[in-house]
Amino acid sequence: MKPYIHNVNYYETDKMGITHHSNYIRFMEEARLHFLAQAGYPMQRLEAEGITSPVVSLHCNYKRPTTYGDKIAITVTVTGYSGVKLSLSYVMHNEAGQVVATADSDHCFLDEAGRVIALRKHAPGFHAILKQALEGQS
Amino acid sequence: MKPYIHNVNYYETDKMGITHHSNYIRFMEEARLHFLAQAGYPMQRLEAEGITSPVVSLHCNYKRPTTYGDKIAITVTVTGYSGVKLSLSYVMHNEAGQVVATADSDHCFLDEAGRVIALRKHAPGFHAILKQALEGQS
Amino acid sequence: MKPYIHNVNYYETDKMGITHHSNYIRFMEEARLHFLAQAGYPMQRLEAEGITSPVVSLHCNYKRPTTYGDKIAITVTVTGYSGVKLSLSYVMHNEAGQVVATADSDHCFLDEAGRVIALRKHAPGFHAILKQALEGQS
Amino acid sequence: MKPYIHNVNYYETDKMGITHHSNYIRFMEEARLHFLAQAGYPMQRLEAEGITSPVVSLHCNYKRPTTYGDKIAITVTVTGYSGVKLSLSYVMHNEAGQVVATADSDHCFLDEAGRVIALRKHAPGFHAILKQALEGQS
Repeated sequence: MKPYIHNVNYYETDKMGITHHSNYIRFMEEARLHFLAQAGYPMQRLEAEGITSPVVSLHCNYKRPTTYGDKIAITVTVTGYSGVKLSLSYVMHNEAGQVVATADSDHCFLDEAGRVIALRKHAPGFHAILKQALEGQS
Repeated sequence: MKPYIHNVNYYETDKMGITHHSNYIRFMEEARLHFLAQAGYPMQRLEAEGITSPVVSLHCNYKRPTTYGDKIAITVTVTGYSGVKLSLSYVMHNEAGQVVATADSDHCFLDEAGRVIALRKHAPGFHAILKQALEGQS
Repeated sequence: MKPYIHNVNYYETDKMGITHHSNYIRFMEEARLHFLAQAGYPMQRLEAEGITSPVVSLHCNYKRPTTYGDKIAITVTVTGYSGVKLSLSYVMHNEAGQVVATADSDHCFLDEAGRVIALRKHAPGFHAILKQALEGQS
Repeated sequence: MKPYIHNVNYYETDKMGITHHSNYIRFMEEARLHFLAQAGYPMQRLEAEGITSPVVSLHCNYKRPTTYGDKIAITVTVTGYSGVKLSLSYVMHNEAGQVVATADSDHCFLDEAGRVIALRKHAPGFHAILKQALEGQS
């Protein structure tokens, strides 16, 4: 799968002259939702089926600054999937091919009442995609 | 009513070293919702009654830059209320008493089906507050 | 010139389920800087020449909501250029070709000391581009 | 030291109806800079001395959602200070006293040329404050 590209916006910089660190958390979301859409299960479809997917935890290592005009290429990998929890990792490169950040996130899936659900039962097609993504990368 | 105070956050600055102009639109919202809460009708109550209030239009004049650490005092005034449309104006001062921005916004009110509603019928208490606010300021 | 496309991100929505109105101000900046880059004068070049360009005022009319996953096509037009002040207008369409917002913004140009400058003198190449853009559209 | 309070803004929510997870990273910054200011060394002073302090890494665990109108009380603790790296931890509570998030962040300090510096030499007053904060909490 091709990396997701984020072009850094002027409004994403701060007075240090660099991309504010909180924005990388948003780039992770952009890349993650792009990944799900590419895999055939866009968030709109999950939401239409009554499923939301909050972030349980995340971690980000900032390696090199970026700034307005930089293109960040983000690769998303499924590193874990238990049926109820999804773990993703992210590597972000600048145009020179240098790593600018690495990150991880964990996600669960909720029904409309806010209860944690098992995807195998509630969204078997999505379950199969995540299982395959995990195996394809191991 | 006392002005609403916004303390400018580091993440609200950009690489020019000043508060990014888009954030003043957010400060307007903060001041507006504070005003409604002070007037006895917090947004949570409107939403509990099935009413939302989208922005129809807005205008902002930027007079002086601000930056991280500045305190912005925002005064909100009801400048128009027709029963279906609410018009507000905003004056923002820095701690030296200088005007940093002036702004206006127009709002309508929607029911849960997204239809424009007349507040006199759907939220008579809120209607009375807005009418009084308009008259008290004219 | 082709319209600039913004794909609405999940984090740009609010609890009304729609794109938060403040984000359109950011989309205006994205489209504006894209326009300058396409015209041969990216903001990085202006900044390398010691010039910044703050927003003096802006206006936005919200016509139709958008939400996560929508593509917004933004057309930027130079509506005024006096040598010291630049006026732009924006029309934003959704994929169905409906107008979702219209907007205007005014900009001045500052040197490194924060003084308003005349571009004819400080950046004659950029001055010529803006003059031509204004004439080409009138 | 009293916890820092963040009132969740409407624009900080997303279409799930809750505070978007990326905003907690911004609340961490607010609480961190408040902590430094309370400790006698506001970021403005560091920057006036030519020192910036980028985030090296961060981690956040999301325990319970919050939404518009919630007050989040954030306690910051110095968990490590080596002279060149500062480690902080954060506990965020809602008004019911429940933990909504826990987090950690690591920071280094740079001079104007972007080189990592030892604070003992470049900002001995700040160095003493951080050392004392670490010891006071151990």
